[in-house]
Amino acid sequence: MVEVYTWEPNSNAGKPLLCLKEKGVEFVYHYVDIGRREQHSPEYLKINPNGTVPTLVHDGVSFTESTPAMEYIDEAFEGPPLRPTDPHLLWRMRKWCRFMDASLCPAFAMIASHALASARFSQQDPDELRRALDRVPLPERKRSWSMQMFNRVPKAEVAESARRIEAAIPVYEAALGEYPYLAGPEYSLADINAFCTIYALPLQRPEQVNRERTPNFMDWYRRCHERPAIQEAFALGHDWVAGRVREMRRLLGIESVCGG
Amino acid sequence: MVEVYTWEPNSNAGKPLLCLKEKGVEFVYHYVDIGRREQHSPEYLKINPNGTVPTLVHDGVSFTESTPAMEYIDEAFEGPPLRPTDPHLLWRMRKWCRFMDASLCPAFAMIASHALASARFSQQDPDELRRALDRVPLPERKRSWSMQMFNRVPKAEVAESARRIEAAIPVYEAALGEYPYLAGPEYSLADINAFCTIYALPLQRPEQVNRERTPNFMDWYRRCHERPAIQEAFALGHDWVAGRVREMRRLLGIESVCGG
Repeated sequence: MVEVYTWEPNSNAGKPLLCLKEKGVEFVYHYVDIGRREQHSPEYLKINPNGTVPTLVHDGVSFTESTPAMEYIDEAFEGPPLRPTDPHLLWRMRKWCRFMDASLCPAFAMIASHALASARFSQQDPDELRRALDRVPLPERKRSWSMQMFNRVPKAEVAESARRIEAAIPVYEAALGEYPYLAGPEYSLADINAFCTIYALPLQRPEQVNRERTPNFMDWYRRCHERPAIQEAFALGHDWVAGRVREMRRLLGIESVCGG
Repeated sequence: MVEVYTWEPNSNAGKPLLCLKEKGVEFVYHYVDIGRREQHSPEYLKINPNGTVPTLVHDGVSFTESTPAMEYIDEAFEGPPLRPTDPHLLWRMRKWCRFMDASLCPAFAMIASHALASARFSQQDPDELRRALDRVPLPERKRSWSMQMFNRVPKAEVAESARRIEAAIPVYEAALGEYPYLAGPEYSLADINAFCTIYALPLQRPEQVNRERTPNFMDWYRRCHERPAIQEAFALGHDWVAGRVREMRRLLGIESVCGG
């Protein structure tokens, strides 16, 4: 019995969804609405006391931390391998995962939270926000939620995050000129990890990511968006993600092989 | 042919040294003096353009990023396995590695750099420091070096780092009550990753980490400090690390099985 408690197929929340679809594993998808902060509800904290998404539940055990959970999925289930066997390529895969987890994913989260969350929170009752903050279990997360809720994200951090994203684009372009996928010749967890966060970057940064300036990167986008497993995973998404994915497919001229 | 370019067996710099000693792999140890910023020298940047330590060089390929490099060592070389085979325990191992890499190791680095580096840098010529800063290749690192050199580490960040370290102690104590090692019944990369950073915590926080308050944690310290491979790796250390390790062995009542 496999269950996934998570938000949309977007950023870390999407990683187990894309992995399980690639492996062909049946699972129950429990939608956790992070806009309504359901991940801090007493019911959810019974499944994951840290109050983070995603949580994979397999045979009654909760697996948190999305990148270690992806490796777990590849080890614990049958289906096509999502990791290279060559030790050098495996190191490349884990180096790319680390780049996303330590540097780029936090940069996107910082920018998204600054742009979206701060605007949304300014409409809400500060007392209610303070009560919501009391329910956040991890002190690190409590701190970052507090900065978002009360518009105290340091401007220098937002600028540094934008710099990192911009600097990453030529790095991806160069790597995808060496091999068709991030770790090497085959699609792997490194691609899934990256794709969940940057699946719509050509829409967000059209001046920097496009057919002329980053042809290798755009070919990777086409190969990934064409994958049936990715389309099936994104078909689990709600309006916001689904709209961006539809626009990406139009941009790439891709036919949908399934819903979404 | 295996070469390791690194600083002392301390924090991230120590990880390949402890792994290679466990595997029984012969290697050439090239000492990189980070106090003299040798990792930003033109010679070193030929080996690792990011200017970080450690770098493992195997058959002419440079492996950076210490945690992915540890998994590479376990995959590429013969010798006793340093990872469990059970997928659940492997997930535990990687979750502990992630806890150290994403949360605790940066907290220790923040406190050490604030306490040691800021004091040292205040004695140095600011123009020379600015020239040294120009040689740092990674913008992220340039930014953190600049904060250290000119005493601009935010006080709130230092306080948050101290909070994280304090909060981690009961978490380790509880985990080491479940199993003798972090991932499970056997010593693994999770222990090596943690030990390289916290090998002397009972000296740094004697009120919090001691026989009465954290007996499981102290048993883990004894088991680790008794390992011949750990002693051999620490014997590669220079004065600063060697002194702390000697003091830890005195505290634990351990005989040295080799130098250091």
